[in-house]
Amino acid sequence: MAAGVGERPKAAMLVYPGMILLDLNGPQTVFSLAMFDILLVWKDLAPVKTDVGVMVQPTHTFATCPTKLDVLFVPGGLGGTTACISDFEVIIFLKKQGDGASFVTSVCTGSLLLGAAGLLHGYRATSHWYVRDLLPMLGAIPAAGRVVEDRNRITAGGVTAGIDFGLTLVARMLGEARARAIQLVLEYDPQPPFEAGSPESAGADLTAEILRRRAPAIDPARIAVQAAGRRLGIDS
Amino acid sequence: MAAGVGERPKAAMLVYPGMILLDLNGPQTVFSLAMFDILLVWKDLAPVKTDVGVMVQPTHTFATCPTKLDVLFVPGGLGGTTACISDFEVIIFLKKQGDGASFVTSVCTGSLLLGAAGLLHGYRATSHWYVRDLLPMLGAIPAAGRVVEDRNRITAGGVTAGIDFGLTLVARMLGEARARAIQLVLEYDPQPPFEAGSPESAGADLTAEILRRRAPAIDPARIAVQAAGRRLGIDS
Repeated sequence: MAAGVGERPKAAMLVYPGMILLDLNGPQTVFSLAMFDILLVWKDLAPVKTDVGVMVQPTHTFATCPTKLDVLFVPGGLGGTTACISDFEVIIFLKKQGDGASFVTSVCTGSLLLGAAGLLHGYRATSHWYVRDLLPMLGAIPAAGRVVEDRNRITAGGVTAGIDFGLTLVARMLGEARARAIQLVLEYDPQPPFEAGSPESAGADLTAEILRRRAPAIDPARIAVQAAGRRLGIDS
Repeated sequence: MAAGVGERPKAAMLVYPGMILLDLNGPQTVFSLAMFDILLVWKDLAPVKTDVGVMVQPTHTFATCPTKLDVLFVPGGLGGTTACISDFEVIIFLKKQGDGASFVTSVCTGSLLLGAAGLLHGYRATSHWYVRDLLPMLGAIPAAGRVVEDRNRITAGGVTAGIDFGLTLVARMLGEARARAIQLVLEYDPQPPFEAGSPESAGADLTAEILRRRAPAIDPARIAVQAAGRRLGIDS
């Protein structure tokens, strides 16, 4: 743990235009109840626009973000992720921080960005189900779990997996008792009204329909990931 | 449905200082994918500070919010909820809009605010588990479900219940197929790492500990709810 005795764990959460607010806000709420020191980090301090229109104001820039973080976290949001994959300023920041952080983590398509920074090479990882097949191009070993842990890399599935991820990480850092107390406060006793949260439960037709509808976002992501893989010298 | 043919359903979501962003953002993300027209409403347009520090900018004021809404929604956040219960400007707005809305809804402690506006009198309703026992003071009939539907009132449990609520409402308004597609996009296939999301699963000791820790917020809420019940002439 990078945090000294009595210090709050320091979690830097990347924020970027086009991110999905819920990807951030799920784990952020868990970290907040765990009394983490939460840094929202971007290139500059101008508010970034999220999927739902809510603007999120960064608290730190790449230049002012402290190093030796306890947690480096990257949310998803496919259009924004794709733009960041080709943005060297973002990639260099993630690479530098990822090498020194105690935990390197993501939700949803955020893992593509970690992978593009070379941080998942040789690690088991997951992503949103509709881009999980892109992970090998970045040297990662795709795994199907909702929250996938491999050494200090913890990646989670699409959007809502962030709550499961947050609780998993708090348990690992501060113990299970702490995580259970937070789960009770958040009344996290999910009862989805339908069985449709994964391609397996939703069925082939609905899965194909979503893939077709999302193709205009998935296709550019594939191209950006391929280019990132080539930069990393990965033969996939 | 108040929305005419071809129009987007109009959902007014109350925002207020001290609200829990996740209470809002869970259903907001579902509504956004369902192509709802989302209005974030408060007394004025100054950004309101949420539990995690993120500022949310209202899009409409009480004065500019259209009437005959498809959905009126109130998030929770106990300190902020308590302040609003005693704030006539908020109560009058909710009462007026609630009488004309197709669906009157809440997540978490937001139901106390609906109740204080007289909108749950004689309705089955729920709230965050730690204040559910306050509902009878507002004339509501407490129910234990995660999402409780009684005619056009839909109330949900604490924080994370907002995702279940959002999907339930979209299914009711636009059909189950639409809700299932959104559930798949959000990869809502929850796998909580622990069994601790309800008082029953968390056990008596942890539940008592949370109640003890939250007493400084629950006690003032009880006093505000009692006063609201008296104003409503409810004999509880």
